[in-house]
Amino acid sequence: MSALVDELLAGKHSALARVITKIENRSPGYREIISDLHRHTGHADVVGITGSPGAGKSTLVDKVAAEYRDRGLTVGVIAIDPSSPFSGGAVLGDRIRMASNAGDMDVFFRSMSARGSLGGLSTATTDAVTALDAFGKDVIIVETVGAGQNEVDIVRTADTVAVLVPPGSGDDVQMLKAGILEIADVFVVNKADLDGADRTVQQLREMLQGRGGTAGHHGGMGLERPGGDGDAGDDGDAWDPVIVETVANRGEGVDAFIEALAEHSDYLDRTGQREAQERERFAAEIRTLLREDANRLLSRELVQRGGIEQYVDAVVARETDPYTVVDDVLTPLRDCLDADHPR
Amino acid sequence: MSALVDELLAGKHSALARVITKIENRSPGYREIISDLHRHTGHADVVGITGSPGAGKSTLVDKVAAEYRDRGLTVGVIAIDPSSPFSGGAVLGDRIRMASNAGDMDVFFRSMSARGSLGGLSTATTDAVTALDAFGKDVIIVETVGAGQNEVDIVRTADTVAVLVPPGSGDDVQMLKAGILEIADVFVVNKADLDGADRTVQQLREMLQGRGGTAGHHGGMGLERPGGDGDAGDDGDAWDPVIVETVANRGEGVDAFIEALAEHSDYLDRTGQREAQERERFAAEIRTLLREDANRLLSRELVQRGGIEQYVDAVVARETDPYTVVDDVLTPLRDCLDADHPR
Repeated sequence: MSALVDELLAGKHSALARVITKIENRSPGYREIISDLHRHTGHADVVGITGSPGAGKSTLVDKVAAEYRDRGLTVGVIAIDPSSPFSGGAVLGDRIRMASNAGDMDVFFRSMSARGSLGGLSTATTDAVTALDAFGKDVIIVETVGAGQNEVDIVRTADTVAVLVPPGSGDDVQMLKAGILEIADVFVVNKADLDGADRTVQQLREMLQGRGGTAGHHGGMGLERPGGDGDAGDDGDAWDPVIVETVANRGEGVDAFIEALAEHSDYLDRTGQREAQERERFAAEIRTLLREDANRLLSRELVQRGGIEQYVDAVVARETDPYTVVDDVLTPLRDCLDADHPR
Repeated sequence: MSALVDELLAGKHSALARVITKIENRSPGYREIISDLHRHTGHADVVGITGSPGAGKSTLVDKVAAEYRDRGLTVGVIAIDPSSPFSGGAVLGDRIRMASNAGDMDVFFRSMSARGSLGGLSTATTDAVTALDAFGKDVIIVETVGAGQNEVDIVRTADTVAVLVPPGSGDDVQMLKAGILEIADVFVVNKADLDGADRTVQQLREMLQGRGGTAGHHGGMGLERPGGDGDAGDDGDAWDPVIVETVANRGEGVDAFIEALAEHSDYLDRTGQREAQERERFAAEIRTLLREDANRLLSRELVQRGGIEQYVDAVVARETDPYTVVDDVLTPLRDCLDADHPR
């Protein structure tokens, strides 16, 4: 095990930061580091928070992190911007500085960007969560912008998914239907003091009822669970998404949000869903890594064979065709695997 | 070589239809058929036509096919709807019947749908074009809806790409910027007799000028190339997209559209771009097939090893981790390839 891993496990934030940089850059040795760290994971609560730009994600995340900190928990935040090729940029830089200046490194902020492929970014997020979990952070927040497929993949690295909805955005509620609705455990209507917030809450509730859910929510600030029909989470094994209203910049509703997250966490433990989700995530990760590595292996094999151009030449000359080329390249692999599994 | 291939090469439309059905369903033996057919390809002009629903694609395609037919050319049309799980549905069924009843099988219509994965659909399109080309069709039209990444991939199987823009849709012109603009060789403003058509043409022209092009176009119906600045295609090796106005249901502008397609085809031959594009397509096809086949091989390998669940068990128990699992599965392959390439 490397000295870097030892330092990370010993609680050095500088080692944690260096490991995440290696993960982000896919530096040599990062895979061995993640392999070494994996056995130390499984203790953190991982919360994914997503929402459109301007919904107030970073303000809410800052307040939530501070509140967890006040409760004596350690927190790690990974902010991911799939659309930016830069990391540690100005916005997040400020937040890092803020935390660092206070000497409060128990809230560890870190940004990651889309340097590699976007598929790679969701793998990198998983690896960064592994590092923070092994480090011993109690709560890990994965923050990402938007609601596309890439963001869905990223936010799926979390046990609990919260989606921020800006008020007065009937259209945005419609947009949510495309992918995010299915994975949201908690909806947060932030800036709930603005006009249109009530209508947004109403629209969310109708949307959830439309799919058979009975979202717990009341008209005022924060979260309330009426004893009866709104009692989400106890209805068999199903979790009914919760709607929370917050005014993050004034800190209002933050406690209620944390309560909703805690309820979902309890639900995951009570129903065995936490392990079920973990198994799904690991299976998906194995498949993704297999695909990525096999593609790399095949690219190398093409180079070893003199490059793809000679094959293209032959295909253009109609001496061979793409299917025959692919069979030609893959037959040694197929034979090799068959030799390992005699029939 | 199979009897089916012989029949197709002998010009039997029933064999062509059966081959495309095999391609669509990925029936056993379809790969060998494509391999056999490949050497007979390279003679057709392949035109891709895309545009939003209601832009008038099918009407235009019907008129264009009929006009080619009148000029003594044989035509094949493949219509692809990535959003539909059905093929040969009602709409296209009518068109097939229309052509069949007339006994005019030199215009061969066929629809394909998204039965498999969408990546698979673009491979299937390539294979269907191979079948039509080997059959001896002079012109092959690939018609697809929309402007998403999948449609871009599908339409890229063509030598020349035409994009239909409905008039009066300033928003739609904006939407085009996402991916389709870059691959359009010809823009068709169909229903050019409607209000807003002039404005749409103007917007397209401004958009093209914004990227440095000098689209050939005049204000009236059809296509005109002013001798000077609009002389697209002769400006070094670059092709400046052409804008054509049509009223397809009255047949207006169809000749001008065919002229624009012919000019682009000449340009491809004159500049060597046709072969360059063909090489790019073959390279992309080889890479795609390699990826698809390798994934299938690995899925089979996981099953051979007793399924992914045992690995997930071990990862959950922290006895191993995803990276180690993947190395474990891929090491035999890596060793095998290395044995073939001693250093």
